[in-house]
Order: sequence, then structure tokens, then C-alpha cells
Amino acid sequence: MRISELSRATAVPVPTIKYYLREGLLHPGAATGANQAAYAQEHVHRLRLIRTLREVGGLAIADVRRVLDAVDDASLPLHRALGVAHHALAQPEPEAPDPDVEEARADVDAFLAGLGWEVSPEAPGRRVLADALVALRRLGGDWGAEVFAPYAESADAIASWEIRETPPGGATRAELVEWAVVGTVVFDTALRALRWLAQEHHSAIRSKRRRPRRRRP
Amino acid sequence: MRISELSRATAVPVPTIKYYLREGLLHPGAATGANQAAYAQEHVHRLRLIRTLREVGGLAIADVRRVLDAVDDASLPLHRALGVAHHALAQPEPEAPDPDVEEARADVDAFLAGLGWEVSPEAPGRRVLADALVALRRLGGDWGAEVFAPYAESADAIASWEIRETPPGGATRAELVEWAVVGTVVFDTALRALRWLAQEHHSAIRSKRRRPRRRRP
Repeated sequence: MRISELSRATAVPVPTIKYYLREGLLHPGAATGANQAAYAQEHVHRLRLIRTLREVGGLAIADVRRVLDAVDDASLPLHRALGVAHHALAQPEPEAPDPDVEEARADVDAFLAGLGWEVSPEAPGRRVLADALVALRRLGGDWGAEVFAPYAESADAIASWEIRETPPGGATRAELVEWAVVGTVVFDTALRALRWLAQEHHSAIRSKRRRPRRRRP
Repeated sequence: MRISELSRATAVPVPTIKYYLREGLLHPGAATGANQAAYAQEHVHRLRLIRTLREVGGLAIADVRRVLDAVDDASLPLHRALGVAHHALAQPEPEAPDPDVEEARADVDAFLAGLGWEVSPEAPGRRVLADALVALRRLGGDWGAEVFAPYAESADAIASWEIRETPPGGATRAELVEWAVVGTVVFDTALRALRWLAQEHHSAIRSKRRRPRRRRP
């Protein structure tokens, strides 16, 4: 198909497709003339993957590239693909060391060790969690990392299920890596949305329980 | 304190503070001269709140303003404050209606109805979930909204606990609204980070189990 058809099939504007081609995120099509190329189903799929990382994951172009490099790298072990996705999703580390963050980081490390979780010291989740703890502390209250305990319990339940259920049978290695990356991005968003919805639900139940009952006249 | 001291206390640069003052996010200090004002502890707190919404929540300035308006609005019912936070965190709705999204939205609505959750039709989580479902479908596979069932179970457990435990006793209304907003933002991030960490942990356990055992020579 031509670039205009690729654009229609994916709802990605032609200038955006050209930008992804220049940036090397999208592999070039087969040349069919001086200024023409033919695109195939794999390009449709790749464009959808890029849009998912951009729109659902909110990833910057540089992070999309890092994730796509992981998908393309046939030598990367599968469990490393998860780490690449986590790194891309974590905000970049601040330049100057912050003593508050370092203290929170030590608390988070002790908390995770207490849970018995086997996690590398470089796991980006550690810093994201420390940043969250610093934010809580700066807004008031002497919070310890144990404030995260109920969340850790839910996260453990869901991750245990995810790792047991993935990979689906019969998938190729490239499909598995893509699933690890897409699953991290898409289900992060889904879990967040479901937490909001469940909050609204439980808040509605609670406010009903508190409302005094009235008899109809 | 002077603006330079406010900047030191919060690690927010003076030009950024002036920008927040111009935008009305930060209330003005008490005027002490033609070009001078005195800032108090409430300004320190407000700046930290803004930075949390910006850095931990990734909120745009317009969304920060919407959330702060909710914190400042003494007439807003507490359970509405949660909705304001959810709206600010959800990506803006796309302009043109997309039939794929509308179909996914109907599936998500049926799924939530099946769970028996009491959620308003305007809850932003519905659309975020529909977008996630569309992304999964476009990348291949005939996914139904039931793919979210294990996530809904975890989300239900955590939200039930959150609504039961909040509000902490003895807090003022403004503190409660702030807690609802900050809690949504900070624990979204914490839950995401904990899911990544738990994924790494369960992935490590799994890959160990699969590795063939070797005897030491």
C-alpha cells in the first residue's frame, strides 16, 4: 500500500508517518519509484504499536525508540524486555542528588526487602516509589514506606497472575517481547482507570450508607 | 519569608514561583513594599502540592488549576473531589468520535455493569479503559473487556480499603479534599511502581524455576 493508504488504515497523518520514518521508528517501505514506497501489514502493526506507546503510555519519542529497540533486539532475554518498558515509563532521574529522596529510597529498599521481593537495585520502580514517599512526606505527616503495604499486596496478586498467564502459548519471541511491553503500558493505564472507577463505586456505597433514610410521603 | 527563602524551602526556582503567582495557582503573599511580599508556611505547602501534581502526577498547568480550584472550593462535596482528580488525570477526550472507541466503550460499560459497580456515565475511567481496549484490539487479537477482570479484582480490593480508611479522623474538610486529590495522584504512581517491581520479582522466580540445575564441580 502507499503512504496515503497506510495513513488511512492507521489514522496516523502522513507527516507524522514521515517523521517516524526519518526518526527510524518505522522501517522504510519497499522502494517502488524515486519518491514512492510500498508499505505492508507489518507497517500498519508497527504504527499501531508506536501510537499505543505514545497515546496510552504517554511515552516521549526517545522512550518509544528505546522500547522498539528492545522489541527488535532478537538477543534480548524476555525478562529484560519488562525492565526496558519500566525504564521507559519511569520519569528520568533528577540530576542533583536530593537527601530527602535518598532517605526515602533507603526506606523503600528496606520495605521491599521485608516483602522478600527479588528486585534488582536498578529497578526504576524503587525510585518512583521513593519519589512518591517524598511527596507524601513534604505535604505533611511522618509517613513510612509501610503506607504502601496494601498497594504492594494488590500489586503482588496481579503481577503473580500476569507472569503466570504470560506468555500465551504458541507466540514467537518477538510477539512475547511486544506483549511484555504492550502489557506493561496498557494494563498500567487499565489498572489506574479501574482503581478510579472502584473508588467512585465504594465512595457511592459509603455516602449512601451515611445518608439518613427518608420515608416517601 | 521572602520569595528567595520560599524558593530555598521548596527547591522551586524563583521564576517558576513567579509564574505560578501570575497564573493564580499560588495565592499572593502579604505586600511588604512596592515590589516585595512576605510568604508563609501555607505558601510552602501550596508549592509542594503544585509540585506533586506536576511531577508525580504529570499534570499540565491547566489541570493543576482545576484540581486546586477543587481544593479551594469549600462548597464542593468530598466525593466530587475524587472525580475532579480523575478528570484531571485522564487524557483529554479526542475531538472526532471513533467507531472503534465507541464499540469498546459499550463493552466496557457492559463489563462494569456486570461487576455491579455504581459509577456515573461520565466517569473518565470508562473512556480510559475503552482506549486501552482499543489499543489491545488494534495490536491483534479479539479481546473483550473481560481481559480486565483480574485487574478489576485488584482495583476493587485496594479502593475498598482506601475508601474505608479515608478520611483519617480529625481532618478539616480542606485537608480531606487535598488528601483525596493527593492520594489519587501519589498512589496511582505508587501502585504502578509496585506492579513493575512485583512483575520483576515473579519473573525472577519463574526464570529460576525454568533454569536447569547444575552441580558445582
